[in-house]
Amino acid sequence: MTDKFVYDFKEGNKDMRDLLGGKGANLSEMTNLGINVPQGFTVTTEACTRFYEEGRKLWDSLKEEIEVHKKELEKINNKKFGDNENPLLVSVRSGAPISMPGMMDTILNLGLNDEAVLGLAKLTQNERFAYDSYRRFIQMFADVAMGVDKENFEEVLSAKKKEKGVEQDTELDADDLKDVVEKYKEVYKRELKEEFPQDANDQLEKAISAVFASWNNERAILYRKLNEIDDSMGTAVNVQTMVFGNMGNTSGTGVAFSRNPATGENKLFGEYLINAQGEDVVAGVRTPQEIATLHEAMPTVFDEFASISEKLENHYKDMQDMEFTIENEKLYLLQTRNGKRTVQAAVKVAVDMVHEGLIDKETAITRIEPKDLDGLLHPTFSEEALKNAEAITKGLAASPGAATGKIAFEAREAKERNDKGEKVVLVREETSPEDLEGMVSAEGILTARGGMTSHAAVVARGMGKCCVSGAHDLIVDAKNRTVTVNGKTYGENDVISIDGTSGLVYDKELEMVAPTLEGDFGEFMQWVDEIKDMKVRTNADTPRDAAQALEFGAEGIGLCRTEHMFFEKDRIFQVRRMILADNVETRKDALNNILPLQEQDFYEIYSLMKERPVTVRLLDPPLHEFLPKGKEEIEELAKDLGKTVDEVNARIAELAEVNPMLGFRGLRLAVAYPEIAQMQARAITQAALRVKEEGVNIVPEIMIPLSSDSKELAYVEKIVKEEIEKVFEEKNDKVDYLLGTMIETPRAALTSDEIAKEADFFSFGTNDLTQMTFGYSRDDAAKFLDIYLEKGIFERDPFQVLDQDGVGKLVKLAVKQGRENNPNIHLGICGEHGGEPKTVKFLYNVGLDYVSCSPFRVPIAKLAAAQATVEKKNK
Amino acid sequence: MTDKFVYDFKEGNKDMRDLLGGKGANLSEMTNLGINVPQGFTVTTEACTRFYEEGRKLWDSLKEEIEVHKKELEKINNKKFGDNENPLLVSVRSGAPISMPGMMDTILNLGLNDEAVLGLAKLTQNERFAYDSYRRFIQMFADVAMGVDKENFEEVLSAKKKEKGVEQDTELDADDLKDVVEKYKEVYKRELKEEFPQDANDQLEKAISAVFASWNNERAILYRKLNEIDDSMGTAVNVQTMVFGNMGNTSGTGVAFSRNPATGENKLFGEYLINAQGEDVVAGVRTPQEIATLHEAMPTVFDEFASISEKLENHYKDMQDMEFTIENEKLYLLQTRNGKRTVQAAVKVAVDMVHEGLIDKETAITRIEPKDLDGLLHPTFSEEALKNAEAITKGLAASPGAATGKIAFEAREAKERNDKGEKVVLVREETSPEDLEGMVSAEGILTARGGMTSHAAVVARGMGKCCVSGAHDLIVDAKNRTVTVNGKTYGENDVISIDGTSGLVYDKELEMVAPTLEGDFGEFMQWVDEIKDMKVRTNADTPRDAAQALEFGAEGIGLCRTEHMFFEKDRIFQVRRMILADNVETRKDALNNILPLQEQDFYEIYSLMKERPVTVRLLDPPLHEFLPKGKEEIEELAKDLGKTVDEVNARIAELAEVNPMLGFRGLRLAVAYPEIAQMQARAITQAALRVKEEGVNIVPEIMIPLSSDSKELAYVEKIVKEEIEKVFEEKNDKVDYLLGTMIETPRAALTSDEIAKEADFFSFGTNDLTQMTFGYSRDDAAKFLDIYLEKGIFERDPFQVLDQDGVGKLVKLAVKQGRENNPNIHLGICGEHGGEPKTVKFLYNVGLDYVSCSPFRVPIAKLAAAQATVEKKNK
Repeated sequence: MTDKFVYDFKEGNKDMRDLLGGKGANLSEMTNLGINVPQGFTVTTEACTRFYEEGRKLWDSLKEEIEVHKKELEKINNKKFGDNENPLLVSVRSGAPISMPGMMDTILNLGLNDEAVLGLAKLTQNERFAYDSYRRFIQMFADVAMGVDKENFEEVLSAKKKEKGVEQDTELDADDLKDVVEKYKEVYKRELKEEFPQDANDQLEKAISAVFASWNNERAILYRKLNEIDDSMGTAVNVQTMVFGNMGNTSGTGVAFSRNPATGENKLFGEYLINAQGEDVVAGVRTPQEIATLHEAMPTVFDEFASISEKLENHYKDMQDMEFTIENEKLYLLQTRNGKRTVQAAVKVAVDMVHEGLIDKETAITRIEPKDLDGLLHPTFSEEALKNAEAITKGLAASPGAATGKIAFEAREAKERNDKGEKVVLVREETSPEDLEGMVSAEGILTARGGMTSHAAVVARGMGKCCVSGAHDLIVDAKNRTVTVNGKTYGENDVISIDGTSGLVYDKELEMVAPTLEGDFGEFMQWVDEIKDMKVRTNADTPRDAAQALEFGAEGIGLCRTEHMFFEKDRIFQVRRMILADNVETRKDALNNILPLQEQDFYEIYSLMKERPVTVRLLDPPLHEFLPKGKEEIEELAKDLGKTVDEVNARIAELAEVNPMLGFRGLRLAVAYPEIAQMQARAITQAALRVKEEGVNIVPEIMIPLSSDSKELAYVEKIVKEEIEKVFEEKNDKVDYLLGTMIETPRAALTSDEIAKEADFFSFGTNDLTQMTFGYSRDDAAKFLDIYLEKGIFERDPFQVLDQDGVGKLVKLAVKQGRENNPNIHLGICGEHGGEPKTVKFLYNVGLDYVSCSPFRVPIAKLAAAQATVEKKNK
Repeated sequence: MTDKFVYDFKEGNKDMRDLLGGKGANLSEMTNLGINVPQGFTVTTEACTRFYEEGRKLWDSLKEEIEVHKKELEKINNKKFGDNENPLLVSVRSGAPISMPGMMDTILNLGLNDEAVLGLAKLTQNERFAYDSYRRFIQMFADVAMGVDKENFEEVLSAKKKEKGVEQDTELDADDLKDVVEKYKEVYKRELKEEFPQDANDQLEKAISAVFASWNNERAILYRKLNEIDDSMGTAVNVQTMVFGNMGNTSGTGVAFSRNPATGENKLFGEYLINAQGEDVVAGVRTPQEIATLHEAMPTVFDEFASISEKLENHYKDMQDMEFTIENEKLYLLQTRNGKRTVQAAVKVAVDMVHEGLIDKETAITRIEPKDLDGLLHPTFSEEALKNAEAITKGLAASPGAATGKIAFEAREAKERNDKGEKVVLVREETSPEDLEGMVSAEGILTARGGMTSHAAVVARGMGKCCVSGAHDLIVDAKNRTVTVNGKTYGENDVISIDGTSGLVYDKELEMVAPTLEGDFGEFMQWVDEIKDMKVRTNADTPRDAAQALEFGAEGIGLCRTEHMFFEKDRIFQVRRMILADNVETRKDALNNILPLQEQDFYEIYSLMKERPVTVRLLDPPLHEFLPKGKEEIEELAKDLGKTVDEVNARIAELAEVNPMLGFRGLRLAVAYPEIAQMQARAITQAALRVKEEGVNIVPEIMIPLSSDSKELAYVEKIVKEEIEKVFEEKNDKVDYLLGTMIETPRAALTSDEIAKEADFFSFGTNDLTQMTFGYSRDDAAKFLDIYLEKGIFERDPFQVLDQDGVGKLVKLAVKQGRENNPNIHLGICGEHGGEPKTVKFLYNVGLDYVSCSPFRVPIAKLAAAQATVEKKNK
């Protein structure tokens, strides 16, 4: 490790993000680009790591290094830190290598004290400004560095405003603020049992320490967990000369994006407040003005800002999210970074930038997190429903999409109700980082206060979650669990619908419609298809599913579960008759009745899918799943079958299993009842021959589930092959076909060398493989898995993201052994992991030929596959 | 493959068993030793393989080769095959590389026909002998080579004896036999629609083909399956000059062992029949005489035989099983082989031979199949019970041990009733190879006919199963399902007891006692202990089990299941109270009540086991296993707990699981309810400190079940460690202890590299590992596993013999990764496979430090371990 822990802005650049944090690196880069940035220095992330090694304190040599850079800053500004006449004031901000919105702790105006405030007033000829700055500093320092609840300070300020009969902070005059400062210092003393520190160096050290400490506050830890950010990277601290947006009506502060972060439209987008400082905009205390109005208020400043925005976007080749301050009509940039955006915006920006020649297609497709596409693949309200619905109010269209649910007033409550299966919309005055978990659980978020860059809006967009913010008509009474809108009051049992694309709010459930791949999204997905070199199929059991999947670009069916066909109302009786048969003849007769129906299913699917591959899995679940459970149903079945209730119950009891997951199912059924496999093989073959007559040449892929041994597989394949050959002979026609198996027991993976010799393809059934590898029943594991996730023993649910260390090892082994023993083997996955981006990338690198997932996840899987292709190429 | 398919006896030797079969190799060896063996030749096992390749027929070049060797035989004997004046007669016998008693098909007197029989009569001056030989040949040829049921022939013979008013075959004269021969030929023609073949070469080819074909008859296949003999090795065929035991009263035939095969006593043991041929002795048709009486009947022959017996035993260095024929007072040896024996005899012979200086200890311990020790480890009738019981009859003590059960009259019935859990004794007139499966299922076997070398006796000894044979008082009426003994009649619901050591039969259930390691067995096991270099522990849950295990030489406890302690009557209430607790306090209170009882359990076990290692496993089963199931029990529990029945039922429903095997159990309980693990850790530690005060220094081994991840294991270990340290502090004393885990989920094996860093030991739980690796629920798998075994898809049940290809691969991986990442790690197994010899040998070679098994299997595991040590050394 180096000895250098502090960098002046002019020493760094944008590529030093790991060391200087995102904010520090970009402040350096802007400095290098000649943009007007208040100068300062960055204490590195390595210092943060050392801070924890030292037992959460700053060490002497660091303090000396800071001193050197502080002196440099004093020289540049011609001011003196801690001086009472001409004090250098600084801001202290965190800045981690990865942006963590809402998690940062910022202190402004550091360096002020009871004497310096007088000097500042005298120097600026603005006493009100000086005391406004001082009271802000006391509050932020107390809150951020010392952990005093800011409510304490807000009470003082509210009381003062009430006393004076005013509404806005800006309406308080210098004397009012002097009084506020005195009262703030009293609060500080009351809460912390010590005086507010008057020594500037003391203030600075405490502030830097506080930023480092905030890296490990609970909110930050939760955010990193949710976003899978490495806990060990640490944060940097930026110490920067203050510029003042609160110096009067020619000053102000704002936040703006180079393009619209909600829609992607290529137009400056943002908000600012006149005579305000930093957090005022983000906190949503005052509703800010749109950036466009700055054009009239201060045209020169606006033009300069627009030009800087373009310069930065061209330089970074991505949409920028910028913070700025205007001090007496002079523009300063305080931050730039790649802007968070909705996935709709992300797609549009990426597509536009390709068209603008800023980036190439491969870059474009890496600009979107695959899982964020989910936001494009979820339903919106139907036009019909919108036509007939009357909105009760309108807020800001903060994050697009649609959501319907009962009202939840607290984050915790939202989580609890969602855990129980209830759909809720979180309704809050405004949200704060404490609400994060509740936001994850809610269908959507509705707030009464805050703008497009408020906490709720930013976080919701990050999550791809529908959000309407700043709906001022709302009167939220969380304590009494009501929200009143224009005189009408709603409670926790009332359903509301919010439209994040229009900002409209409705007091009933609205019908939703499925999304499609059109416009920019369609073009984007075309590029994805051009770039990726792994196939993406879908899991579809019915012609309806298959059609939906084709809509989303599925390149075949990786898993068609035939048992779902068995459950259909007109078939279940024959299935039950088959199961309860006393002899092979009755069983065969029942199967003969099912045969034409199964054949028709396959025929319809083949007709839809045309030449695309379709993998049909033979009957998998244990037979008892098909039998009725209720008394009445059993009686009815007995009657229909001409059996006694006791006979039916006896067979039900006989088939009952202690652990059905590890029981009599999968190809074990085919070993015991070959006639079932024969019927299915016949249905598949006859359907294939039918579509062949119509000119569609398909190669049926028949998948045998749950094998754990090559001899077992060979036994069942023989049964299937003989039946197929029989059909060929009867029909005097034939088709090519593939016979393969699922790899879903650990033993199948372990003995895949032998199994590969019997199989044309492997399809990894990672759901069951995960169950058996961990020893987790998916039906029962939630009880303890939740505890594991809560206690931090596991970082993620292995049923959602494939466990690469354990289950992944088996997959790798089977791929290796499979290819070694059968070079022509075709390898895919049909477990639900097939649509999870991390898993898709892992499987691409492991060498699968395709993944298969639910229709709605096809575009996600495709994007992940394309990114994996690019990543591999660039390695 | 060679071109030579036929060997004269003088061309072979005893080491050519794979090629010539056991019988052929030993006939060659005896020829080389100068022992009087009727000369002949062997058609090899390779010819058998080729026979199947040729489509079950002999090919031309083989026929030519046989012709050459036949000519050589004619020259030696100065007779001519197929000649009518001076015909060369031969026997044709199978002889596989591994002896298959009861499975062989033998044809004697081959070469006879309607003409040659006249020549033979003239030549021997013995017309009766000639026709006796001919009628035997017709029957054997028809039965063995052509598949005609021998009942057909026995009917003819019985009718003849009835007509003549005689009882014994020997009482029929030449004319009677001539008539019998005519009738036999009619039977042959009737059954096969062709004349009995008169051409000697035709007879020979059919006979050789029949022997080859018999390799794959159902009985042979079953025997090989039961004894795990490779199906592909094939059988050889021995064609040997006939000598005749049926030439009158100076002729005879017999079977003898160089030592007593039931007890091991070093004294010639066997039986012979005067004026009889081959199968007469084994078939049990006439009850033969003891070999000792031959000393008086033909002293010279007896002495010569005794001397040959000694010579062969010294040469083979093992007890010999010999067949001989006396033709006109001249002794011929027809076969020698290492004799089958009871395990009691095997131990005695091995120990005696070491003392006699014939073999060394390492050889001695390889002379016993480990699984056969089972026969020494089963109970016998208690002396007390025998004192008060009166036998209803006595038979031969054919295979030692004791058995009690209801009477089964048919093999099939024995299997069916046993499958349903009933204990049965198979009672038969005599047994035949068709009865094999029923013999496996029965507790013991009782026959009315047959001697010590009858089918029942030989097979029962091979199985280590109790057998009383030749109990002549029995009148078995299988059709009417009764057996009458001295006027008293018993049916299928009556219980009998048989004592295979005394031959006594009782008509009630007798108390049994456990066996001990004494005498020869004790000495033998001492050698086993000296030789083996892997430890053998036991699975014991109670002090009583532990005491039993010590008796059998256990070197520690590898698995002490604490849940069994929880089920005891005085504790289950507190356990249920703990499970149904509404809060941590009540749960802790219930656990506090269990604590002193658990501590006492461990204290008693530690006191018994002294310094030997004891591995205690923390609570493993899901909590619902402890809750009552019946309505009344639930009501009672609710009352005792002061809860409503609904409350109790609600908790039962909440805890219910779809797949408990993959559910909320093992260390998952400790993660959710740390107080349970804390209580157990405390009980273990306090017990260890108590025995320490008494001067016994034990190192408790605490085993955490069902881990699948290193972080999960570390989490639970922390809980356990902290509690132990707390106890140390409270008691101001400490002991060393080990903390380890079971490897019983596939993921634990896969991630054993990481888990090893957290564990002092691994103990393979191969029961669960087998369940999860195959995806087989042990509770449910019987339904389909039986089908798999029946259809030959699997050769053996993976819950009985460890699956080395799949589960074994995981074990190997975990051993490798475990040692690489923790060189001090201690490795063992506590699944039931730990007592299975094949598995023990596999695990020895994989490198485990110990195996642990049920108390009764400890000597078996030790012997397997010792043999593995010797095998490795000799490799």
